[in-house]
Amino acid sequence: MSNRTRPLVWVLNGPNMNLLGTREPAIYGSETLADVEAKCRRVGDALGVDIRFHQSNAEHQIIDWIHQARVEAHGIVINPAAYTHTSVAIGDALRASDLPVVEVHLSNVHQREAFRHRSYVSAVARCVICGAGSDGYEYGLRYLAKLLGDATERV
Amino acid sequence: MSNRTRPLVWVLNGPNMNLLGTREPAIYGSETLADVEAKCRRVGDALGVDIRFHQSNAEHQIIDWIHQARVEAHGIVINPAAYTHTSVAIGDALRASDLPVVEVHLSNVHQREAFRHRSYVSAVARCVICGAGSDGYEYGLRYLAKLLGDATERV
Amino acid sequence: MSNRTRPLVWVLNGPNMNLLGTREPAIYGSETLADVEAKCRRVGDALGVDIRFHQSNAEHQIIDWIHQARVEAHGIVINPAAYTHTSVAIGDALRASDLPVVEVHLSNVHQREAFRHRSYVSAVARCVICGAGSDGYEYGLRYLAKLLGDATERV
Amino acid sequence: MSNRTRPLVWVLNGPNMNLLGTREPAIYGSETLADVEAKCRRVGDALGVDIRFHQSNAEHQIIDWIHQARVEAHGIVINPAAYTHTSVAIGDALRASDLPVVEVHLSNVHQREAFRHRSYVSAVARCVICGAGSDGYEYGLRYLAKLLGDATERV
Amino acid sequence: MSNRTRPLVWVLNGPNMNLLGTREPAIYGSETLADVEAKCRRVGDALGVDIRFHQSNAEHQIIDWIHQARVEAHGIVINPAAYTHTSVAIGDALRASDLPVVEVHLSNVHQREAFRHRSYVSAVARCVICGAGSDGYEYGLRYLAKLLGDATERV
Amino acid sequence: MSNRTRPLVWVLNGPNMNLLGTREPAIYGSETLADVEAKCRRVGDALGVDIRFHQSNAEHQIIDWIHQARVEAHGIVINPAAYTHTSVAIGDALRASDLPVVEVHLSNVHQREAFRHRSYVSAVARCVICGAGSDGYEYGLRYLAKLLGDATERV
Amino acid sequence: MSNRTRPLVWVLNGPNMNLLGTREPAIYGSETLADVEAKCRRVGDALGVDIRFHQSNAEHQIIDWIHQARVEAHGIVINPAAYTHTSVAIGDALRASDLPVVEVHLSNVHQREAFRHRSYVSAVARCVICGAGSDGYEYGLRYLAKLLGDATERV
Amino acid sequence: MSNRTRPLVWVLNGPNMNLLGTREPAIYGSETLADVEAKCRRVGDALGVDIRFHQSNAEHQIIDWIHQARVEAHGIVINPAAYTHTSVAIGDALRASDLPVVEVHLSNVHQREAFRHRSYVSAVARCVICGAGSDGYEYGLRYLAKLLGDATERV
Amino acid sequence: MSNRTRPLVWVLNGPNMNLLGTREPAIYGSETLADVEAKCRRVGDALGVDIRFHQSNAEHQIIDWIHQARVEAHGIVINPAAYTHTSVAIGDALRASDLPVVEVHLSNVHQREAFRHRSYVSAVARCVICGAGSDGYEYGLRYLAKLLGDATERV
Amino acid sequence: MSNRTRPLVWVLNGPNMNLLGTREPAIYGSETLADVEAKCRRVGDALGVDIRFHQSNAEHQIIDWIHQARVEAHGIVINPAAYTHTSVAIGDALRASDLPVVEVHLSNVHQREAFRHRSYVSAVARCVICGAGSDGYEYGLRYLAKLLGDATERV
Amino acid sequence: MSNRTRPLVWVLNGPNMNLLGTREPAIYGSETLADVEAKCRRVGDALGVDIRFHQSNAEHQIIDWIHQARVEAHGIVINPAAYTHTSVAIGDALRASDLPVVEVHLSNVHQREAFRHRSYVSAVARCVICGAGSDGYEYGLRYLAKLLGDATERV
Amino acid sequence: MSNRTRPLVWVLNGPNMNLLGTREPAIYGSETLADVEAKCRRVGDALGVDIRFHQSNAEHQIIDWIHQARVEAHGIVINPAAYTHTSVAIGDALRASDLPVVEVHLSNVHQREAFRHRSYVSAVARCVICGAGSDGYEYGLRYLAKLLGDATERV
Repeated sequence: MSNRTRPLVWVLNGPNMNLLGTREPAIYGSETLADVEAKCRRVGDALGVDIRFHQSNAEHQIIDWIHQARVEAHGIVINPAAYTHTSVAIGDALRASDLPVVEVHLSNVHQREAFRHRSYVSAVARCVICGAGSDGYEYGLRYLAKLLGDATERV
Repeated sequence: MSNRTRPLVWVLNGPNMNLLGTREPAIYGSETLADVEAKCRRVGDALGVDIRFHQSNAEHQIIDWIHQARVEAHGIVINPAAYTHTSVAIGDALRASDLPVVEVHLSNVHQREAFRHRSYVSAVARCVICGAGSDGYEYGLRYLAKLLGDATERV
Repeated sequence: MSNRTRPLVWVLNGPNMNLLGTREPAIYGSETLADVEAKCRRVGDALGVDIRFHQSNAEHQIIDWIHQARVEAHGIVINPAAYTHTSVAIGDALRASDLPVVEVHLSNVHQREAFRHRSYVSAVARCVICGAGSDGYEYGLRYLAKLLGDATERV
Repeated sequence: MSNRTRPLVWVLNGPNMNLLGTREPAIYGSETLADVEAKCRRVGDALGVDIRFHQSNAEHQIIDWIHQARVEAHGIVINPAAYTHTSVAIGDALRASDLPVVEVHLSNVHQREAFRHRSYVSAVARCVICGAGSDGYEYGLRYLAKLLGDATERV
Repeated sequence: MSNRTRPLVWVLNGPNMNLLGTREPAIYGSETLADVEAKCRRVGDALGVDIRFHQSNAEHQIIDWIHQARVEAHGIVINPAAYTHTSVAIGDALRASDLPVVEVHLSNVHQREAFRHRSYVSAVARCVICGAGSDGYEYGLRYLAKLLGDATERV
Repeated sequence: MSNRTRPLVWVLNGPNMNLLGTREPAIYGSETLADVEAKCRRVGDALGVDIRFHQSNAEHQIIDWIHQARVEAHGIVINPAAYTHTSVAIGDALRASDLPVVEVHLSNVHQREAFRHRSYVSAVARCVICGAGSDGYEYGLRYLAKLLGDATERV
Repeated sequence: MSNRTRPLVWVLNGPNMNLLGTREPAIYGSETLADVEAKCRRVGDALGVDIRFHQSNAEHQIIDWIHQARVEAHGIVINPAAYTHTSVAIGDALRASDLPVVEVHLSNVHQREAFRHRSYVSAVARCVICGAGSDGYEYGLRYLAKLLGDATERV
Repeated sequence: MSNRTRPLVWVLNGPNMNLLGTREPAIYGSETLADVEAKCRRVGDALGVDIRFHQSNAEHQIIDWIHQARVEAHGIVINPAAYTHTSVAIGDALRASDLPVVEVHLSNVHQREAFRHRSYVSAVARCVICGAGSDGYEYGLRYLAKLLGDATERV
Repeated sequence: MSNRTRPLVWVLNGPNMNLLGTREPAIYGSETLADVEAKCRRVGDALGVDIRFHQSNAEHQIIDWIHQARVEAHGIVINPAAYTHTSVAIGDALRASDLPVVEVHLSNVHQREAFRHRSYVSAVARCVICGAGSDGYEYGLRYLAKLLGDATERV
Repeated sequence: MSNRTRPLVWVLNGPNMNLLGTREPAIYGSETLADVEAKCRRVGDALGVDIRFHQSNAEHQIIDWIHQARVEAHGIVINPAAYTHTSVAIGDALRASDLPVVEVHLSNVHQREAFRHRSYVSAVARCVICGAGSDGYEYGLRYLAKLLGDATERV
Repeated sequence: MSNRTRPLVWVLNGPNMNLLGTREPAIYGSETLADVEAKCRRVGDALGVDIRFHQSNAEHQIIDWIHQARVEAHGIVINPAAYTHTSVAIGDALRASDLPVVEVHLSNVHQREAFRHRSYVSAVARCVICGAGSDGYEYGLRYLAKLLGDATERV
Repeated sequence: MSNRTRPLVWVLNGPNMNLLGTREPAIYGSETLADVEAKCRRVGDALGVDIRFHQSNAEHQIIDWIHQARVEAHGIVINPAAYTHTSVAIGDALRASDLPVVEVHLSNVHQREAFRHRSYVSAVARCVICGAGSDGYEYGLRYLAKLLGDATERV
């Protein structure tokens, strides 16, 4: 973990998230990913936390970002989207990062198909939030800000 | 749903939650249920939401409260504890209430025994939060406050 | 079994049945539980059978009633509702009662969620009726009246 | 569905039902299929419902009858016997008929072998009755008579 | 069971058996069904047993024959072929016949596809023989002849 | 296989297919089975292939046709409908025919109930087509015409 | 754990145990629950252990007793009866109590229905005894007396 | 969907398809992917449909192409190869595209290993074709051409 | 395989078979293992086949005998008793022997506990006979005698 | 069962039990098997019961001892150790002995690996005791002494 | 396979392997991937085998390398890391390569989570080595060197 | 573990391994077990490790050897053959030995029957090698030699 004065949190988004706001609005709402990023930055400013925000459709790109975050960030908020259910590799990368992780899903995945009920990420996450729409990102950032603040104070 | 000027949210807690703060602190922390209630009331005040807070070890008491909430409340935050995994009846009562429901768990149940991975409540909840400790209650209240505010505005 | 001159049948109803007529009318219709009780009494009068009619959200209350029925009644019609699928204890109480049991469900549970397909009660019931709405109670009472009449005649 | 003045209900019986009364009387009783037919006709007369009564050991004969019933009858009472558990084709024919269907079994199939617990018919039946002996046919006819009467009145 | 002076055994053959000798000779050999029938008659003569020999591709035809055998025969040798694995109805008919039954398969079904490992007939058969080619019929006849002889002697 | 100058293909249809065009048009469309037959004949003419077209609700009738096809036809297009999922016997008959087989389904069975996902026919089919409506028959005929043309040329 | 001079053990009994001696004597014997209590007291006296003895049909009552035992007792003998198989909440309460627990069943549950083979209590019990009739309680008390004696001596 | 005068269909091919014609010719034939592309173009010309043809071993590349197709194409023919069985992300991308999709497999995957029987794509495809070799692409294009023609006419 | 003038068949019997005739006679009859051996020798004499007859409760002893049989015998009849269901090693030894094997069970194992339905031996046996009592040994010897006779003649 | 004046009980121990006291003491304690034998003898003396005590790593040796016990002993206490989970043959031997059997395990096997939860012995045991350390042997002897005393008195 | 004078072996490493030596050293040791590469080169020199050594977090990159290896290498040593358990595509690429493959894992995956017990690669590997740390690579190279040497000699 | 100057490794071989070289050479090659022993001795000499080499068809003999090895050896190489999949007792013995264990299989068991995929030994082995033929023994010895050397050096 890095020695910066303000904590840095990476917010990572998995495949198809770039379509947010245009894809199946009945399930995902009309907010775009840019809206989500703006909200994360507003929340980060209010909490005194720096934000790095990324999206990729490539599993390896997400793994590479987690490796990078591992040496320069203090926490990760991740919405792995479809990779939640199929990527052991992302789960391994998060485990190797040794960072506190919050897993976020826009919709309540428990009300969808059975194959969306298995997550390779939940076992390494500190906290899992699903079904709260983009507010899930806000709650995840609040959780990390508090956790990192506590850790700072202990030091 | 009732016609009160300020929204009312019931916060319900399942079996063994009365031991909070004394039981397995390594998993559940040292906060007591009274601390959780105080936090919920503070958050409710800040959000302009009235709170009813209950705990019971009896499945039927929780069902009765949900029936009551059905006619006088606007939303439910519930931590069903062990009944999460065994009570079809609580799930049915929540479904019958037609209220927005947030399911909260203090610990990340996905990292515990397999029988804690099945929930009869998740299928009727709008939003599920686990692993954020007692902050999960706060996030649940924020989610409902926003949802109920939006609904009010729409009316 | 008791020695009364007219047979006595207990009609027991499980959790959430007190909401009948107001809860999910698309599935359960607009009849209330009071309507069902009135129908059972009318049918009982026509058949020469006395009726005791109860509902509770509490598993233990239903067990206690079965224990009582065991010493004073001649048969049981039971709609265990959600406890059908989770209560080994109610199944054991019915088995211990040694009374003829009819299991009734308002809706056709075979067309609903998978966890509603398992019943701990069917294995001790003489007869199972589902999907006939509240007429299922009537058929159950007819079945018991006939069975108890036959038994009386044999004696 | 046909335009007759009195409703017509077909009562269909599956394989081995022709042996009724002679086969395993400990399970099925001493009534013959002719007795069941006579009872159905008596009940039909009392309810103002016409009855067509058939039995066959051939799966295709039963399918053909359902196709015929589809254009001239108003409801079906069916005891598919062993085909309950193996015939997707009979289930499809019933679904295609668009008629209200009651599934009847003489014995409580839930107390017999595991392969008798799966039914391809229950998912298309309005109502399932098992374990009431030949009275199950009577209850099924009552249910359809009422349903068809209601429908008539609505028209 | 009939009162004839010499025992009568029906030998029944299921679907596709009429192709024997021409179909997949690597598995089933080059004997035809007529050869099997001739062998059964020779064996029957040697054992003092009368033989009725049938084949059909129709499930209901086989059921009808079993019903007939039930009133005039003393035992059944049956090779249900593919119906072994799918017909609950044939199993029920054999159970209803109350006759001693020998189940025969030409090939060792345990070395073939998994769906050929389940038999609805084995549970009602006294004896199951597979993998001995058409000699399995001979062994089945010997078994029944002995059994029926013993029964005769006891009378 | 027969020695005719033009190839002959049998097109076989399973149970309930006679209702096509009237049954559940949302799933199966408004074409009747006669329309499908006409289309097959047109396509056959264009391809220089003779067509035999049959439908039956009887499993044994379909088996008998396959046996007949075995000695006089060069290929089979079959839509086994509900028997797809339950008939080992039809699968065996097709295997015994040694003819190239195309399995066709009007709807995409992978999007329907779980019991429609198992096919006893797919393992003996050269080619399986589902979800293309009645064009699936056309594609099947094209496939066989090409295959049989190639075989002819090789000879 | 309390500081009493003599160790205190709570003996808890689950649903339907109040019927003991009258219910299915072939399985459970003719002893009543009062007999079991008397035996426990005799054994307790001999071992120098105080006994609290309770039975309830209510899951929550048993949970409450465990919570009480947690602050004043030194060990628990529990026969959770039917709740063994369905109550995660009782398992959680026992785990939270941090007391040594002995699980007792009168009959050998391994010889009964499959759903009686799963126990939510065994994972927190030190010792499980089944099939020894009411002597199982005696053995459980002996086990705890020895364990507590050893602990005392170590202190 | 774009407003072009001629419909545009993207034909996408998953991992290892670049080896076609050289890899396991016993299963996949000797045609190369260039041959398949040429065939698709010939068929497209005949049908009045424009073709975009791609192959990639990268899951994310295929997702990106589907996103692009979503804004400029009218339909997709996809052979997802090994990703069929493991990529929830490709399934989600196709669902988000709202385009009619045809899933094609060269070989009959139902005759291969069990893990090839599960498809995350079939649930969003209109039509699935497997086992017809490269003709499956042709049939898929015909299907889409017809569907798009019909849609055009309706407009 | 050895070069003896008369074929030699080993008849091997698994654990607990030494109790035959005294153990559970309702299931296994009153014949002793010595009776079975005598019958095998009589049948062997009639068929011109030499017999080696053994029983052991030790898995390794049976493996050793199979290894010996491998170099000096022409066939094996084996009743592996309880080892049928648990010994991969005996299955491997039989496979390694390259001899024709007949598996015999006195009772019809398909009608007993589920764990007796799995056999590690059936996959290497030419022929499996169960439920024919000790006649199963006779049929097995006839089968091998014929097979070995045919083989001899071919040489 | 033998006619001795004092009852004789065999105490049998399975594989690896000879290592007791030296192997994984955290699980099994520091008592040796000789200590267990001494304790059994002391308890036997106090109860007026004779003891035969054996251990073997060989499955067949244990089977042979059970066969011997069958003719000269009155009851068996057995700790089958690892053979509990894999030996159908020991279960069969115990069943054939017709003696009352107590199954003992030192540790609570329900808290260990899943494959240790299946027992082929429990179904034939009167009583199963696990997790009480070597006191389980004592309890088992008490149980048998009482049972045999009762039986003696009845005679 | 290429015609080079010295055999060429590609050593491929999957996702997160670039973190070796820094990630969870308790499980994976302190060696870095550069150390592993150096060891492989030393071993290659000693064996007269050329080495190509790669690592990637991208599934498609690994597939591309396998395709390249297919035309220029003589064997592959692969540690697919997390892709072992999720990538059918890598399994297919290896199968298509027709090269001898050795699968290596640093840790004994059989002692880790259940989802790490399934491998899509083992079915195409000649040899699987796990738990020997980086020496597993050495053994894999020895195995291939010997195999390729033998093949060379045979030519 | 013993205090010898040179490390001693026991090499143990399970059932049917004595047939090596003569049994199914297509799978196992033509090497005999004596060849394997010779190779192990040569490798041991080169590595400065003493070798004890055994084979048995008896499960208890292998257990006894492991017990002996436990007091006098420093490591075990074991090819448990068929006992891999059925012997909990051998797994327990190895666990009790507290020695480093290498599990070796000649063939790649992942490419054989499903019941060969489960191993009771892998969970206690440090390292598992399969598919490398008898070289697997060599690699196992190298692994142990290195491990024991390191341990020595640390002392």
